[in-house]
Amino acid sequence: MTKTELDHAMSEAASAVSDTIDHLLSVHDQPEARLIEAMRYATLGGGKRVRPFLVLQSAALFNVREECALRAAAAVEMVHSYSLVHDDLPAMDDDDLRRGKPTCHVEYDEATAILAGDGLLTKAFEVLADERTHEDPNVRIHLVSALAEAAGDQGMVGGQMLDLMAEQMDLDVAEITRLQQMKTGRLIAVSCAMGAILGHASPQAATALRAYAHDLGLAFQIADDLLDVEGSASEVGKQTHKDADAGKATFVSLLGVEQARNQARMLADQSAQHLEMFGEKGDFLGQLATFVVERSH
Amino acid sequence: MTKTELDHAMSEAASAVSDTIDHLLSVHDQPEARLIEAMRYATLGGGKRVRPFLVLQSAALFNVREECALRAAAAVEMVHSYSLVHDDLPAMDDDDLRRGKPTCHVEYDEATAILAGDGLLTKAFEVLADERTHEDPNVRIHLVSALAEAAGDQGMVGGQMLDLMAEQMDLDVAEITRLQQMKTGRLIAVSCAMGAILGHASPQAATALRAYAHDLGLAFQIADDLLDVEGSASEVGKQTHKDADAGKATFVSLLGVEQARNQARMLADQSAQHLEMFGEKGDFLGQLATFVVERSH
Repeated sequence: MTKTELDHAMSEAASAVSDTIDHLLSVHDQPEARLIEAMRYATLGGGKRVRPFLVLQSAALFNVREECALRAAAAVEMVHSYSLVHDDLPAMDDDDLRRGKPTCHVEYDEATAILAGDGLLTKAFEVLADERTHEDPNVRIHLVSALAEAAGDQGMVGGQMLDLMAEQMDLDVAEITRLQQMKTGRLIAVSCAMGAILGHASPQAATALRAYAHDLGLAFQIADDLLDVEGSASEVGKQTHKDADAGKATFVSLLGVEQARNQARMLADQSAQHLEMFGEKGDFLGQLATFVVERSH
Repeated sequence: MTKTELDHAMSEAASAVSDTIDHLLSVHDQPEARLIEAMRYATLGGGKRVRPFLVLQSAALFNVREECALRAAAAVEMVHSYSLVHDDLPAMDDDDLRRGKPTCHVEYDEATAILAGDGLLTKAFEVLADERTHEDPNVRIHLVSALAEAAGDQGMVGGQMLDLMAEQMDLDVAEITRLQQMKTGRLIAVSCAMGAILGHASPQAATALRAYAHDLGLAFQIADDLLDVEGSASEVGKQTHKDADAGKATFVSLLGVEQARNQARMLADQSAQHLEMFGEKGDFLGQLATFVVERSH
């Protein structure tokens, strides 16, 4: 397995997920079409599609039909995108640039961006609940539960609350780890869990994927903190140096650049080791962790 | 059946739903507790609880266990409350007063209000997907689908987009009707539909409830428009005269006060007639329409 093969698989997956989202958010000629346009703008404007890739690759471990996995992947990406739209709002992080383009509220307006985020979050659950996602209602309701728990007050939204409060707090590494597990780790973990749910994975396989996702999520966040310190906006596609400017504690500010990078690499190696039981089928997932740590955007 | 009996039933229901929400949004001592506090502030601060009452009363038609109906009712109220929190934001309607108290972003701050709304919407789906809401996964997934469709881009969120655009449009009665059906009618309709779903209602019973909810929803909206014109903020508990100030077309601006009131009463009578097949069990629902039209807040 080479880096080129991973790149190729990721770009194939990204394009298939975009096609699925394009189909799920179809344009119409009603006067409120502006809403769907903003929802499309927020989801179809690029991005690495790491979370959908995790859904697709973990589903592939259990031979899930690709059409089903793509719908679950699209739902996760809608939730991720909604969180970026709301996070970028002036009242939150006040960001103008996302994926190298104007953020949703800059391109449209704040009210439309708030509603587009609300619409995407709602649509994600609508997509998962639809029988085209899986014929077994037990599987679908499990997907809904897992996504809601990962994205809600005990997960992503709770993590965002904590992140907003972090400037006024003096967080240590354990607290930063908890914050990041909530804010980004839970959605990464549920992406892998969805493959296991769709594929009726054995408890052992589900546990292995959970351990993989845990380490990957942390590696991912440390890499993000490194990019914020070391990257330029044009390279990364969003504003950088934000955490330091805000005086926010991060893995990098607490550990230093060198130790943070070593920690990320160690976690990446460790994450791949959890996948041994899947043999070659787990290779892309294993390599993804290294890709995530070494990425420059 | 007297008005006092309806008042009594509504206040019993409101209190049971508040207890359920109080239990579902339990406080904790983590640093991000501010989020749960804001979610509680947005849902536990009063309100007529019309939508939960519709869930409970329609479920009672089919002898649904009250514990199940209360969870579904709480989920609908969470969605309704989230929509008010986001609707009140400065970038949207910019309201300071709601249910006679400061709006969520005034009491907390804008960022917290955005996240509290996101958290409530997510929690609603988490609650519905939980097996305590119903033992049959088919029922639960049907509840999730119905709520997502009613609340999303084709329903409530789409209606809010349209409402924001309405100031720049010259809407006629048919267009205002469509807007209001999306913005408020769909959530009222799904409240009744949830009772039918929980109770495995016959197609005839489900159709009757749908027809009832359709007329009730319109009557409700016309009554709201009348309150906006005729009520004072202290009586209604939120800012009034907003639509006229914004030059927005409403049922009242298009039909005039007298005709609008007649129309609302006619719809209220008509809504009750759809319930004949339920006999006395439908009396509270039938009377609710009249309550809604004659209310002063």
